[in-house]
Amino acid sequence: MSAASIVDIIRRKRDGGELGAEEIRAIVQGAASQSVPDYQLAAWLMAVFLRGFSEQELDTYADAMMRSGRVLDLSGLPGPTADKHSTGGVGDKISLCLAPLVAACGVYVPMISGRGLGHTGGTLDKMSAIAGYQTALPVEQFLANLRSVGWSIIGQTDDLCPADRRLYALRDVTGTVESIPLIAASILSKKLAEGSAALVLDVKVGSGAFMKSVGGARQLAQTMCGIGRRLGRRVSAFLTNMDQPLGRAAGNAMETAEAVDVLRGAGPQDVVDLTVILGAEMLRLAGAAPDALAGQHRIRDAIASGAGYERWCRGVRQHGGDPEAPLPISRERHPVRADRSGYVTAINTEALGVACVELGAGRRRVDDIVDPSVGILVERKVGDQVNAGDPLAIVLGAHSAVIAVKAAYTLDDSPPTARPLIVESLLQP
Amino acid sequence: MSAASIVDIIRRKRDGGELGAEEIRAIVQGAASQSVPDYQLAAWLMAVFLRGFSEQELDTYADAMMRSGRVLDLSGLPGPTADKHSTGGVGDKISLCLAPLVAACGVYVPMISGRGLGHTGGTLDKMSAIAGYQTALPVEQFLANLRSVGWSIIGQTDDLCPADRRLYALRDVTGTVESIPLIAASILSKKLAEGSAALVLDVKVGSGAFMKSVGGARQLAQTMCGIGRRLGRRVSAFLTNMDQPLGRAAGNAMETAEAVDVLRGAGPQDVVDLTVILGAEMLRLAGAAPDALAGQHRIRDAIASGAGYERWCRGVRQHGGDPEAPLPISRERHPVRADRSGYVTAINTEALGVACVELGAGRRRVDDIVDPSVGILVERKVGDQVNAGDPLAIVLGAHSAVIAVKAAYTLDDSPPTARPLIVESLLQP
Repeated sequence: MSAASIVDIIRRKRDGGELGAEEIRAIVQGAASQSVPDYQLAAWLMAVFLRGFSEQELDTYADAMMRSGRVLDLSGLPGPTADKHSTGGVGDKISLCLAPLVAACGVYVPMISGRGLGHTGGTLDKMSAIAGYQTALPVEQFLANLRSVGWSIIGQTDDLCPADRRLYALRDVTGTVESIPLIAASILSKKLAEGSAALVLDVKVGSGAFMKSVGGARQLAQTMCGIGRRLGRRVSAFLTNMDQPLGRAAGNAMETAEAVDVLRGAGPQDVVDLTVILGAEMLRLAGAAPDALAGQHRIRDAIASGAGYERWCRGVRQHGGDPEAPLPISRERHPVRADRSGYVTAINTEALGVACVELGAGRRRVDDIVDPSVGILVERKVGDQVNAGDPLAIVLGAHSAVIAVKAAYTLDDSPPTARPLIVESLLQP
Repeated sequence: MSAASIVDIIRRKRDGGELGAEEIRAIVQGAASQSVPDYQLAAWLMAVFLRGFSEQELDTYADAMMRSGRVLDLSGLPGPTADKHSTGGVGDKISLCLAPLVAACGVYVPMISGRGLGHTGGTLDKMSAIAGYQTALPVEQFLANLRSVGWSIIGQTDDLCPADRRLYALRDVTGTVESIPLIAASILSKKLAEGSAALVLDVKVGSGAFMKSVGGARQLAQTMCGIGRRLGRRVSAFLTNMDQPLGRAAGNAMETAEAVDVLRGAGPQDVVDLTVILGAEMLRLAGAAPDALAGQHRIRDAIASGAGYERWCRGVRQHGGDPEAPLPISRERHPVRADRSGYVTAINTEALGVACVELGAGRRRVDDIVDPSVGILVERKVGDQVNAGDPLAIVLGAHSAVIAVKAAYTLDDSPPTARPLIVESLLQP
């Protein structure tokens, strides 16, 4: 499409018009092929940010982004497929538990995951804490591993959704990130390109989430479910609590260790509960469980029998990793102590995530190197009673993080009314 | 300012906030110094397009653009200064008449003008039709010519308003042209940098203007007057009719010839009238005439006495041109005849301007070469009665333009109620 036509498309969206399918494809294909320059994409993204998308535009946009690169065909696998996506939080290691457990229940789990950026961690960094585990595999190897052990977790590849990669990078530097249609289409396009027939979305809400309000989180969840279902997938979403870190560990190697604990029948209750609920829904959507309750039983059985842990070990080996190797966890530990008695009424979870980044557990910039050994162990969670001097958390790594972690805790005389783990469910009928 | 801060500025404007002076200067200086990339400027421009500017933001923006390069100091001249700017139309050769006439009345006229782009002509192209006339002079020579003969018309130089030059080019390719605050600030910043104390704005309205409606033209005029006056200049604006070409000639050499006709006491009435009205206001603003009527007398006298024409000849020579040399006007002529009797009720003036561009008189792209010899002579104007077979216009140049010119004319049985030449006046008190 000519440069003049691209300007016409920008102008139409700017003026609040609805773009036709050809126009949206021209933008997306131009983004993928580099034929539309950054400045035109930036102006268009701002116009979309401020004018929004109709349902039709949104579906066309997500579909075009998906088709801008390779779309995996998983129909040759001998069983159903299901994936999970989380919008990102602190201490969210659920994917590591889910992938082998759901695989152990006969459903293939293709997970192409991202690295951590900003205050939230990334699944890929947690897998990279395992000695030898290869996250940068070509798609053919990913498919072979998936067929062989039922799950695979790798990093994003160049051939999937190149349009999204360019537009995502541009949104980051042009103030066009916080748009529900743009976020939803970006996530869905990548998940749709993975080829999974079923998808469970974990939309985090609260102080440690991108979405601080239930209203915003619900809108994002509805938008993503809408796109996925209209494009022929089975999609459910859960709004889950991110007013405090998930589990006890925040920091890559510690989180991987905690996920292994869960697979071996231990681990913090909230991590186990969320694993069981999301895993059950993956099974139900994939047709491997008739309903949520039956799905939950199957996931619990896969934990209890050790079948999930066995899949984990096989999968890790398949990716070149050693599941028996000790995880690199820092020995430098600094307790963060309560300076009064009372109840933990709130944890500023984003501040905790930022403290993890400062320790070296995450990235301020895309090219930062992550230290897998550092992080924060959360000793007291929202609602817990504490006495002055009790450890609220333990910093693993530099002492300088202690002040920030302490400041993230609010203590008060009376217990809070905390949000439940599952805030809302938007289930595929 | 860091990249993160630029994103914050984009986001604040995106969300409808008011930017502080430091923030606006960071954008404008970043545009001039190339330290802010195109994609961030593009996103910011779209946010401004859709969210607008407060008066305070607008003034800061225009002022920062003016100061992004050299600001001329004309205070050393032995007399007052005044300039005129037209928003662009078809057949608008008024600057060529005004500059020497106002100079002959003792007011210095510094004109840094643009080339034609799109369907409207440019003053610079008309001056370039004169054998030898140099439009690309350094600022020092411009100032010397101005001091010597009282007027100078040159092209834009690299050292004036570099921020505007970059942002203007970017707006053209990002669908952010048609914004009144952005247009107003772009025009005013250039005119303010010229250093003239008085400014008359000719805001064209009608089928051949950028502003098709009086409402839009009035808003642009008010916005420009506001910026200029708040920044300490004396500014008046006229909304003038562009529902038909100005005068008889459209096309560079022909327009220059028509301007010379006016200076020599002939020429079409509307060109004379507009010259007298705009020139009188320049004199009034500059303090060289107590009121409009006195100013009109002075301009008419400068025509009648030949003082204006004498200034014209001296100025042209000062710029290397030969005022006696024949103008290059095409001998290939094709009449466009009425196919019915009646009245000319409308002329699609933008279509006529586009036909001129197609003939070679204007530019589709910035690097097109202009042919000074071609154009259109308008033989019948709005309200004129015609008989079938009468020439409506004469095409000078390729015959292929005849169809377009004919299609631009609307003939009907009864005469139209035409807009007056001066639609509205917004005079500096």
